[in-house]
Formats: sequence, C-alpha cells, structure tokens
Amino acid sequence: MNSEEEVNHFVHNGHQDYLPHITIDFAIFGYQQQQLKILLLKWKGQNGWGLPGGFIQRREPLSEAAYRILQERTSLSDLFLQQFYLFGDSPYRVRERNPKEFTERFGLELEADNWLFERTLSIGYFALVDYTKVTVQTDFFTEDYQWWDVEEIPPLLFDQNEVVEKALLTLRLQIYHQPIGYNLLPEKFTLPEIHTLYETILGKKLDQRNFAKKLMALGLIQKLNEQRSIGAHRSPFLYQFEKENYERALKEGVVHTY
Amino acid sequence: MNSEEEVNHFVHNGHQDYLPHITIDFAIFGYQQQQLKILLLKWKGQNGWGLPGGFIQRREPLSEAAYRILQERTSLSDLFLQQFYLFGDSPYRVRERNPKEFTERFGLELEADNWLFERTLSIGYFALVDYTKVTVQTDFFTEDYQWWDVEEIPPLLFDQNEVVEKALLTLRLQIYHQPIGYNLLPEKFTLPEIHTLYETILGKKLDQRNFAKKLMALGLIQKLNEQRSIGAHRSPFLYQFEKENYERALKEGVVHTY
Repeated sequence: MNSEEEVNHFVHNGHQDYLPHITIDFAIFGYQQQQLKILLLKWKGQNGWGLPGGFIQRREPLSEAAYRILQERTSLSDLFLQQFYLFGDSPYRVRERNPKEFTERFGLELEADNWLFERTLSIGYFALVDYTKVTVQTDFFTEDYQWWDVEEIPPLLFDQNEVVEKALLTLRLQIYHQPIGYNLLPEKFTLPEIHTLYETILGKKLDQRNFAKKLMALGLIQKLNEQRSIGAHRSPFLYQFEKENYERALKEGVVHTY
Repeated sequence: MNSEEEVNHFVHNGHQDYLPHITIDFAIFGYQQQQLKILLLKWKGQNGWGLPGGFIQRREPLSEAAYRILQERTSLSDLFLQQFYLFGDSPYRVRERNPKEFTERFGLELEADNWLFERTLSIGYFALVDYTKVTVQTDFFTEDYQWWDVEEIPPLLFDQNEVVEKALLTLRLQIYHQPIGYNLLPEKFTLPEIHTLYETILGKKLDQRNFAKKLMALGLIQKLNEQRSIGAHRSPFLYQFEKENYERALKEGVVHTY
C-alpha cells in the first residue's frame, strides 16, 4: 500500500478486503552483543512510536497474514513468528475508536461509521532475530523505525506497552522449552555463550553452574566430547542443542521437554 | 438463551449483540483417579460432539466473555481459564460457512447473508479441574455432555480435534511452569502423588527420581522437613509448591521459573 489511491481505498473501503474487529501486532526482538531490543515504528503524522501491525485479508489464513503484514510494513521475512496472545480486555480493545482522536492523529476526515472505528481485538506475534543481520524498510504509513532497548521503551500507541510486556514474558518463559535462540548461537557453543544469551534475554544474572545443570535437566542441551581452543590453557567444552528435541522443535515449533 | 424467541433473535439478529468473525472454544480437562478427560457437548439436532463455545458481546472484555459463555453453556464457574491459541488457518477458519450444511445440521432456514455464515476465527481457552467436583448442566443448544478420555476423542465439529490437540500440548508444556495442577493436589503432597498427577496429564511414564530432580531444579516444588505416616515403616516426605513462585503464580497466572 504505497500510493495515496491505495491508502484511500483502504481507509474507506478496506472492510471489503479485510476482516474487521481484528488486527495483528508484532513484537520483533533483536539480540546482539548482550543487548535485547525491540523494533518500533514511527507512524506518519504522529509524534509517537508503535508496533508494526495490520489487518487480515478476508480469505487469508491467519499465519499467512502475519508473515505478509510484517513483510509489507518492515520488509522482514524468513523469521520464525510465534503467536502469543489475543488482546481483548483493555479499554482500547473493548470500546470503539474515537473519530475525533483518529482525525487529529492521522489527518483524515472519516465518516462516523467508518470500519476503522469499530472495536478491534489484536493478536500478538513475536520473533527473536539477530538485528544486525536484518534490513528494515518502512512503508507508506510509517516514517521511521528504531531498535529500542527493552528496558527503555517509550509510551506506545493504544495498549501496545502491555502487548510488549506480555511478549517479553512469553519469550522469557519459552526459552526453556521452545527453539528460541537457536538461530543466535553457532551450532556448537560454549557454556558462556549460551549463558550470556539467556542472561540478556531474561534481563538478569544467572548462576552459571545451576544454569547449565538446569538446561541439561530439561534435556535442552548436551555436552560434547569436544573443546574449542581459544588461547593458552583455555579450551572450554562445547555444547549443542539436544539433537532429537531440536529437530522435533524445528518441525513442530516446540521442544517437548516433558 | 433458553427460549425459542431468544434463539431466533440470536440467529437472525445476533450480529447486533455479538462481534462477528470470532468465537471462543473451551477445552475443559478433568482429572480424577489417574485419568485425564475432556468435556464434550452433544449439540441438538446433530449426531456429533463438540466443544463448548460461543460469541463475544460487542462491548464485553474478552476474558469476561470467556467466563460468561462457559457458565451459560455448562454452568461451570470458579475455574482458572487460560487462553492458549487463536485458530485461523484451517479451511473451517478461512472460508465462509456453507448455508446448506448449516440448514441440514441445525434445521434452520437462514438468509444467504446471515451473520453466522461469515468467516469465523476461534480463540481457545483451557482449564484443568477435578471433574468429580463440578456439576455440568447443558443449555438450550445442547442435549447431552460427557467426559471423554483424551485418548479416545471422537471426530468433533469443524477443526475442533485440532483445538483439543493444541490445548493438550499447551497443558503438557505448561505444567512445568504454570500453576496448573495445584488445585488437584493437597497443599502438602508426597512425591508419588505429584508424580502420578504429572504422568496422567502427560500420558506417559516418568522416571521418578529424575522427575523429582527436575521439579526441584525448576524451582517448582520444595521438600519439607515433614513426613506423612501412612502405615508401618511408611512415612514419605512431604513437598509443597515453592511458596514465592506459587503466590506470584496465583497473582500473575505464571510461575517465573527463570
């Protein structure tokens, strides 16, 4: 959607093409050098930041819609999106939207019964990527993007701070039983490498010895009979994700640690 | 909704009261005596079984809708419902519904553009209860209910077998980090008690020694300096859920095991 004509059609007749009452929001986390960030977009005509998001086409499978919208809005593709929560409780998700607020925000005069004012629930998807390896390009609606440190997120549109919080909570729970992070480590890694990754994602210090014991008790990683030589008298043992769990995880999206 | 008049209003004018395009489905698991079951309803006029479910009112918070619908349809209340997945990919969740099929199924003649034919996504909620302690009463639309063994579920309406599968998978993952099952055990329990509960939920044998080690490594349970006397020379140690995690879990719905 890049021409004014397309935008006009979307705003006035989008309900012909898209399902009303439901949008998709994306929490795209980026990891690099011991920092956990999140991708925010600056929407045109607004002084504020928000998550990438959009509507589902009327005959489009939900997960296809998720990949399409993210691609259109940010140019990101080839990442592993995970659905995490349907938001429908906050005032923004219960009431209709205020036409006056909307006009001021986007500089658009809309009919009072415009479809964009209807009550809209939002389904959240998240992903975790190495943000130095992806290129983001904004679309017609957005004028800027930025990777924000998850500890310094500004006030976002609607209930999106809550969406980010829930995404972060889910990510933090799931690193112990889903294939999150496998794309951020070499195939064979040292304990300090995975320890640092997990500390960064969790945003806290973890006792190194208990951490390794826990990951092994969970059947998530295994110690290899191999060492990496990184200097005189320094050759830490290498680990890898448990092959069987790992392969099942790639197929099913879930590590069965039970 | 118990009179024919109410049902007629719902069928023909329900879109005035309810959001179209989205329903809630419930996977209510019941545990008792080493069996894991699920509550299915037999819908009137049909020869088949399905999950309890229904629509969200136009101004109703999503989670309130979940408790209301379950209560209306089954009379169940006071249980801990957990949202687990929005279904929008299967053919049943992408296409519109077939008016002819609908007429045959429910014995209702509906206009071709009736709101019930529209594409409908479904958000799943699940709960785990002691099914000997709850009383189920069906409503106008359903003529029977039954607790089915999760290993012997019949073909269900629409994509609901997939819904049950996903619910079961989520339940099985979450017993290691959510307060699931705490309402099925005494406050202080023995290892065999929690071991049996978890084996039943997971549907497989667990090595007893590793199991206990894992639950303690996860910070889920702690060993008490207390024993239960159950006979001559038999006084197993007692355990309880980790108080701090447990209380946070009750408040936030999640055990932070990280």
